Amino acid sequence: MADRLERLADLAVHGANVQPGQVLMVTGEIGNEDVARAVAAAGYRRGAKFVDVDYFDPYVKRARIENADPGSLDFVPRWYGTRMVDHAEDEGARVTLATLTAPNLMDDLDKTLVGRDMLPRVKELTKIVGDRSTNWCIVPAPHRAWATIVYPDLDEDAAYERLWDELEHVLRLDDGDAANAWDERMAVLRDAAERLTARSFDAIELRGPGTELSIGMLPTHRWWAADFTRADGLRHLPNLPTEEVFTTPDPLRTNGHVTSTKPLALRDGTIVRGLRVRFENGVAVEIDAAENGDTLKSLLDIDEGARRLGELALVDRQGRIGPLGTVFYNTLLDENAASHIALGAGFKFLVDEEVVPRVNESGQHIDFMIGSNEVEVDGITADGERIPVLRGGDWQI
Amino acid sequence: MADRLERLADLAVHGANVQPGQVLMVTGEIGNEDVARAVAAAGYRRGAKFVDVDYFDPYVKRARIENADPGSLDFVPRWYGTRMVDHAEDEGARVTLATLTAPNLMDDLDKTLVGRDMLPRVKELTKIVGDRSTNWCIVPAPHRAWATIVYPDLDEDAAYERLWDELEHVLRLDDGDAANAWDERMAVLRDAAERLTARSFDAIELRGPGTELSIGMLPTHRWWAADFTRADGLRHLPNLPTEEVFTTPDPLRTNGHVTSTKPLALRDGTIVRGLRVRFENGVAVEIDAAENGDTLKSLLDIDEGARRLGELALVDRQGRIGPLGTVFYNTLLDENAASHIALGAGFKFLVDEEVVPRVNESGQHIDFMIGSNEVEVDGITADGERIPVLRGGDWQI
Repeated sequence: MADRLERLADLAVHGANVQPGQVLMVTGEIGNEDVARAVAAAGYRRGAKFVDVDYFDPYVKRARIENADPGSLDFVPRWYGTRMVDHAEDEGARVTLATLTAPNLMDDLDKTLVGRDMLPRVKELTKIVGDRSTNWCIVPAPHRAWATIVYPDLDEDAAYERLWDELEHVLRLDDGDAANAWDERMAVLRDAAERLTARSFDAIELRGPGTELSIGMLPTHRWWAADFTRADGLRHLPNLPTEEVFTTPDPLRTNGHVTSTKPLALRDGTIVRGLRVRFENGVAVEIDAAENGDTLKSLLDIDEGARRLGELALVDRQGRIGPLGTVFYNTLLDENAASHIALGAGFKFLVDEEVVPRVNESGQHIDFMIGSNEVEVDGITADGERIPVLRGGDWQI
Repeated sequence: MADRLERLADLAVHGANVQPGQVLMVTGEIGNEDVARAVAAAGYRRGAKFVDVDYFDPYVKRARIENADPGSLDFVPRWYGTRMVDHAEDEGARVTLATLTAPNLMDDLDKTLVGRDMLPRVKELTKIVGDRSTNWCIVPAPHRAWATIVYPDLDEDAAYERLWDELEHVLRLDDGDAANAWDERMAVLRDAAERLTARSFDAIELRGPGTELSIGMLPTHRWWAADFTRADGLRHLPNLPTEEVFTTPDPLRTNGHVTSTKPLALRDGTIVRGLRVRFENGVAVEIDAAENGDTLKSLLDIDEGARRLGELALVDRQGRIGPLGTVFYNTLLDENAASHIALGAGFKFLVDEEVVPRVNESGQHIDFMIGSNEVEVDGITADGERIPVLRGGDWQI
């Protein structure tokens, strides 16, 4: 286990590309101590000046929602933002652990109350990511409670072992030199993104079971793989694993309806199933779900932009996550199994400067999966020509 | 256990006197989740606007000392201080959990390196306490690892149960109405403090096995019990349990030698045993210990004031901790079993304004126990008269 933790931690600080002298911020939950400590050690071995590990406790959040004045639930102490802003100003590094330590913890609470407390997400992070001032990486952190949700038919030990095995596979940690394996995969994804960018589509259309959606593109929009540089040029891999190419759409020109193809696990452990959304002129005017739609809707009440699209991502069927057929109940993993869209904040760095004011703004960013091998994806050119983009999960361009 | 946790938590927020609308900061270690969550719930029930729980991870600190550049070990990200200063500016409340979750964790490391990293203590706290801007309370948080150190002859379950039992006793949680029990005990301690203050001693002398120490007093010095008010008058009980009366001595006029009467457990879990200190004109010029003296010494290298006295506290034998005969390896508890002195920061609020510049200044504050029923304590008046203060642990004034 020590070896496993060290390999995962080494990949995390490789993804974040931690530099000597940097402050590395590690964010996880109570229950992620094993991974967080390994990442801290790996960060120090790479020369970090300080590793600031912050453990979020979802049980304290629950105590708040149960006991606090409902009117105070959106309050966030100002030092939560200061910490992120100061760290970004110092051009620090970040590793975030994607996990699920307390599934169903909030299930019996009033969902509209749960949605008002957005922590551990702080609104300052949206600008920090947009400014590209930090080098960062999100990696999954296995946890026993998470494993039993993903593999309900296995006992806890077997489920935990299986989760580690599958995560090591999708993280390419079973490949000998994981850093090199990711360099090769990123080259393929960057190439796909470049071909999409070169097409300059006016819109992308998706058609499949329960889905008929047209998403308008912005002028000058670019498609990227999750292979980033900071504003000063320092490379980092923000998501490991990653299999997507993505862009930031026109927040005013999405129309039609879409049905999620995977469950959506919110940060507080709430799982939204059977999500259906109808868009009119960019706005998600109808949101329904078989389970926990109200929690999602309350998360989208924070500002006007939360009901508009900030991201469209396409995922082919060549990645390692989709073929497993596993639902991880975790966006980092599930979004890379299937094409997806995100409600909320868009990415300003994906359009030219004069178009930046048209990118969606929001304190929220919630991805949900809408792709499958049954969903056809077309690009629509400015002339109205329809170009097949994905068929059966395979690139057509 | 849920009842026990709730009673302890209710006493903690009573001690801190958490007010509706306040931000309550709760500081503990990984391993204190049970108590921290109970305190969070108790804080919200009292009307806290937000409870900011911060878990310190001593294993991350160990990873730093093992792997980081030794020259970087005194670095603290600026947002650690900003957080405390902003919270104090907002007149927030604090509950600190005194615990020992990882005894001996640092034992095999270079002690001079261990001493350079002072976290979780941040230097800003000294001024915040001196300014009396926050209402706060330190309470013990039972932990299994701590219990096995305190009761090495018991198995873990029995040790943990015994630790809970003894802590409930010294916290007066077995008294029905603990809040009322503490009101009664504080009245007794305040009375002893008032009698000592009225004497205006020029010096206090201690004599006993291995100890012959004269501690000069400052003009206008006051003795207090741990029954505080914020600068704006809000009452709070900063230490629960507490059995001491204390003052801030003249940092220039301590002479002689002193032998500790209890082991001293440092914040990182290092235990200093058999401590002997010799003072010349206020400075601890010789520091020796049977175990871990070097770690202590390295903690005292941070500034000039760390080797001078900031506190003298007298403890009678009427309290609940001394009679147990238990060594808790925890300053909050052990210091209240015996008279003690503290190297480092003094208390400016215990002298008149014109004397404040003479109070000891330091980023450090380390209490160690020097009293026992065998140690005689005298007060020396300005005229050189010797007045017995404690004999056999009983007040003589």
